[in-house]
Amino acid sequence: MTISKPEILQAYQFRHACKEFDAERKISEDDFSFILETARLSPSSFGIEPWKFLVIQNPALRETLKQSTWGGQKQLPTASHVVVTLVRKSHFMKYDSAFVQHFMREVQQFPEDIIALRSSFLEQFQREDFDLLSSERAMTDWSGKQTYIALANMMTAAAMIGVDSCPIEGFTQKAVEQILADEIGLDLQQWGVAYLVAFGYRKEQPARDKTRQSLDAVVEWVN
Amino acid sequence: MTISKPEILQAYQFRHACKEFDAERKISEDDFSFILETARLSPSSFGIEPWKFLVIQNPALRETLKQSTWGGQKQLPTASHVVVTLVRKSHFMKYDSAFVQHFMREVQQFPEDIIALRSSFLEQFQREDFDLLSSERAMTDWSGKQTYIALANMMTAAAMIGVDSCPIEGFTQKAVEQILADEIGLDLQQWGVAYLVAFGYRKEQPARDKTRQSLDAVVEWVN
Repeated sequence: MTISKPEILQAYQFRHACKEFDAERKISEDDFSFILETARLSPSSFGIEPWKFLVIQNPALRETLKQSTWGGQKQLPTASHVVVTLVRKSHFMKYDSAFVQHFMREVQQFPEDIIALRSSFLEQFQREDFDLLSSERAMTDWSGKQTYIALANMMTAAAMIGVDSCPIEGFTQKAVEQILADEIGLDLQQWGVAYLVAFGYRKEQPARDKTRQSLDAVVEWVN
Repeated sequence: MTISKPEILQAYQFRHACKEFDAERKISEDDFSFILETARLSPSSFGIEPWKFLVIQNPALRETLKQSTWGGQKQLPTASHVVVTLVRKSHFMKYDSAFVQHFMREVQQFPEDIIALRSSFLEQFQREDFDLLSSERAMTDWSGKQTYIALANMMTAAAMIGVDSCPIEGFTQKAVEQILADEIGLDLQQWGVAYLVAFGYRKEQPARDKTRQSLDAVVEWVN
């Protein structure tokens, strides 16, 4: 079974960075579970799923977060649902970390010989191919890239069922992390904040049309 | 108009990292244009679209790339289409760069006062919020994160029309960049390689079921 291309493209056109939501309209539990399910099913490098999704529904906490989130001033108070996506810190993601080894064994359920093989590929990748072992930031940014796959999938899936969204990078990373540590006990040894993404229903139509470079400007064929 | 949730989830289940494609089956021009269109319509931070998509159809070039792409040994020779996604290098992405200023003016078509305002937000973001000005790598990794949104959208859209894909990070970044510089004159001052992604039709069904953490393990509600 396939979905028609015009219907899919319509969803990509529907999606825009919605700055203000209709505060009266809530996403149904079934619809929001569906959106989260597309995050859960997202692929990630070596399948290690270096993410966690906090759904921030507490109004007081949203208000506190708003103080360090200049890019979410209207979204945080009006969104039906706000997700803060966490990214695993670098030392968990190292090829020989207890976490990665546990993940391959328990979640991915690989047999021991495959775990050994994949660990050696992961070492080659982290050490040589992408030079990730040289800095904590490089490793965390690599994990962070994976969380953007889940971001895209949540926003696209939302648009396909008529739900609006706004991805938010406009926040002070350290401040938001500290708020979550103070308010809900987030373990900052284990997690950093990748991005926020708000979901709901638009209050009004977008003020301007989508602008994008032409296909010719972004695609080059090598035949 | 909305698309039914079970149909969408079926596509997420259909998508897997396809290791070998049926070399005889080609994606139609219309279908592949559609896949690229979902990359083009993808959102990016501040809307700056820090990407370019090379479609590598030349068999000799694929063979050369294969030598530095351990993660694409079967995919590169058998895929109907191979995309190498490029990411803009750091100095282009700085808030006051000629490129960013030009992009806001010519592509996004913002008026001058909005350009000034957005530039100051972008400076605040790059300088303070995410500390991107302190290293070239941090800035390029930030742009790189945006390219993973396009990656997710291409793979999801492909799955929705029954096309398989495989995202590939298993390559030596510097070697692949040098090959593209030597073979097709890629300007390495301007572009780096973010990832490869192959598209086609699976040769056989995946050997194992998808493994993922449970929704309870990856989602935490703060009510």
